[in-house]
Amino acid sequence: MILRKEVMAKIEEIFKRYGFDPFETPVLEYWETVRGKLGEEAETKLMFIFPDFMSKEWYTLRYELTFPLARYIAMHPETPLPFKRYHIGRVWRHEEPQKSRYREFWQCDADTVGSPYPEADAEIIKLNIEVMRDFGFQEFTVKVNDRRLLTGIFEEELGIDNPLPVYRSIDKLDKIGEDGVRADLLYKGMHEDLVDKIMGLISVRGEFEEVSENLRGVKNEKVLQALSHLEEIFSILEEKNLLFDLSLVRGLEYYTGPVFETVVKEPRIGSLAGGGRYDRLIGLYSGRDVPATGVSIGVERLIDAGLELGVFNLNKKSYIQAFVVSVRRESWRYAWKVAEILRSGGFYVSLDLMRRNQSNQREYARKLGTEVMIFVGPKEEENETVTLYRDGKRKSVPLRSIVSELSAFLS
Amino acid sequence: MILRKEVMAKIEEIFKRYGFDPFETPVLEYWETVRGKLGEEAETKLMFIFPDFMSKEWYTLRYELTFPLARYIAMHPETPLPFKRYHIGRVWRHEEPQKSRYREFWQCDADTVGSPYPEADAEIIKLNIEVMRDFGFQEFTVKVNDRRLLTGIFEEELGIDNPLPVYRSIDKLDKIGEDGVRADLLYKGMHEDLVDKIMGLISVRGEFEEVSENLRGVKNEKVLQALSHLEEIFSILEEKNLLFDLSLVRGLEYYTGPVFETVVKEPRIGSLAGGGRYDRLIGLYSGRDVPATGVSIGVERLIDAGLELGVFNLNKKSYIQAFVVSVRRESWRYAWKVAEILRSGGFYVSLDLMRRNQSNQREYARKLGTEVMIFVGPKEEENETVTLYRDGKRKSVPLRSIVSELSAFLS
Repeated sequence: MILRKEVMAKIEEIFKRYGFDPFETPVLEYWETVRGKLGEEAETKLMFIFPDFMSKEWYTLRYELTFPLARYIAMHPETPLPFKRYHIGRVWRHEEPQKSRYREFWQCDADTVGSPYPEADAEIIKLNIEVMRDFGFQEFTVKVNDRRLLTGIFEEELGIDNPLPVYRSIDKLDKIGEDGVRADLLYKGMHEDLVDKIMGLISVRGEFEEVSENLRGVKNEKVLQALSHLEEIFSILEEKNLLFDLSLVRGLEYYTGPVFETVVKEPRIGSLAGGGRYDRLIGLYSGRDVPATGVSIGVERLIDAGLELGVFNLNKKSYIQAFVVSVRRESWRYAWKVAEILRSGGFYVSLDLMRRNQSNQREYARKLGTEVMIFVGPKEEENETVTLYRDGKRKSVPLRSIVSELSAFLS
Repeated sequence: MILRKEVMAKIEEIFKRYGFDPFETPVLEYWETVRGKLGEEAETKLMFIFPDFMSKEWYTLRYELTFPLARYIAMHPETPLPFKRYHIGRVWRHEEPQKSRYREFWQCDADTVGSPYPEADAEIIKLNIEVMRDFGFQEFTVKVNDRRLLTGIFEEELGIDNPLPVYRSIDKLDKIGEDGVRADLLYKGMHEDLVDKIMGLISVRGEFEEVSENLRGVKNEKVLQALSHLEEIFSILEEKNLLFDLSLVRGLEYYTGPVFETVVKEPRIGSLAGGGRYDRLIGLYSGRDVPATGVSIGVERLIDAGLELGVFNLNKKSYIQAFVVSVRRESWRYAWKVAEILRSGGFYVSLDLMRRNQSNQREYARKLGTEVMIFVGPKEEENETVTLYRDGKRKSVPLRSIVSELSAFLS
């Protein structure tokens, strides 16, 4: 929990630097307000949906943090735009629990509502990159694509009008590999020639300049819009960690434009963050589209990857900076006084609450990994002093200067 | 949300000063693990209890944060004691939503598991007092009582062996007044003489020394234990905000010793915090009792009270410290560069994402309450400068020293 809090605090700090403000929605949402928004798999297999017998309503536990934001904006059309908000909270999915896949986990979302422009997407991708860099991840890639590209190519060149079933197969690429996707598409009844063409398309990835050159031949409105939108994003960012990848589709159905995903090569645990543009989700609630784009960072995934890569460690067991050891039971009131002075001075301090002898107090403090022990006994009480102890080093200091002495001792 | 975050951060800081570490349990708990632990009202009227059709389990949304901690300790008897943890999280109750009474709200809990001694209770009460002081509440009272007192007096002098139904009536004192409690007890079939005696007892409050003197005549083991336990708490704390109040019982059934509650005179919105000792709750799970004591602070109650008392204000609409205004559209890339430099310097910065003209950008920034605007146009770009603006004051500064200049400008 200490590590998770540190990770979330750093992400929150970066969200704030990028001009995002906090905003939170409830954990319970009416099932009616979600139904039909998140796609078949989510709604039939993964969401917690249940009846509440007291209110006679059906509720869901929030599956992700984007649709509640969309519902809010639809209900509050007076909100000044752009509305840049972040939400760090738990979500629930009916997964089979396993490493990096949990039933209850944390997401950190940042969204910009109101701007249809590439600069809004670029800002979201940039803050995602900053999060990765700030934590010290060395080798990570942000894959970028645009929903309109495949859709446009599919309808223009392959005669596929409803691409969603194809996207669902492609989305499993990381899990089941190219052969798996090919088999899945064939199983869905597609002709082998068509499957070959799709497989060819989704193997395209590389630098934006190079790859986009080959796509400019497709004279389709959606493809042209996507290329011009992506071109601006790539040109604002000038980042070497970006990869233009036609195979990236993202699972959720509400994306309408650029999509992206942050991955590390090792360990192979799926994406650490992902997002994209959803210009029509708010309109599903209000009938009036409002453009929006956002990112969701998976806290547990980030931590699992970071632990394996040595970016994070779990050594810290306690915040406690000093433990006040009462050498004898009669010194406890004096120990309390010492602890209170240090707490007023802003230190994180504990003292014996178990009426233990000195050596048991010390053992307990060591188990917590406490850096400094402060011994108080009858002699210290008489002289109004304490004895600071750290790594074999002892120092007797007067009570009146204990705050500054402990600062020095800790640094 | 900004205010709520500030409030929770301050409470968390005080928890840490008192040597508590973070610990969190899930939002979903099996109904079976809660059943019979929280009392009739909670379990029949207030808890969200529902079937999950996928797992065929009955779940509850956590009603409060203490029983999940007890469950955890029962499942992990190897935990080093004392286990001092805090948990800041949401809880759910099926209330009729109204001011200061919500269906989904935040609690900040601190608990010490393992110590049966008064010093553990004293520490918990002290940190509660520190929270109130740190926020600047002037007139607040921490009412203290001990469950064993009334129980002992009831069985010794009034012949009442099961005090829980009487406690349920007394617990409504703040809501329904003395006449209400009296009527409630009579309605439950108690004799008028008995009710008079109970009403006399629960009107006893004041300084511990004085009130306890009158109770020392009761030769009952529970009463004696309670008085000696309370005496140590009051003597450790020496706080003028404490009030010994025999009418305080607390609603939850699991308390076994000292109980306390923090109230303000105005506004009258019930207690802002409350807690007590629950030495037998963990044993309900494991069959092996482990002593424990804790406090729960209600975030929304604290905020509602603090807003009315002028302790808090809701003026802050955004964290953003500076908004970079692109004087012309061509200057946007330069504005992005400026924003990125400031963000790397740790500032919270926004810039135009809507391709608005200068005056609309300024209006938006003003709506958010942004303190500083930073103007960049073709002239600034050419000279590698920016123009800082705040309260009618302008200053042109070179790009290379913009971080230090903005620091100075903001202070």
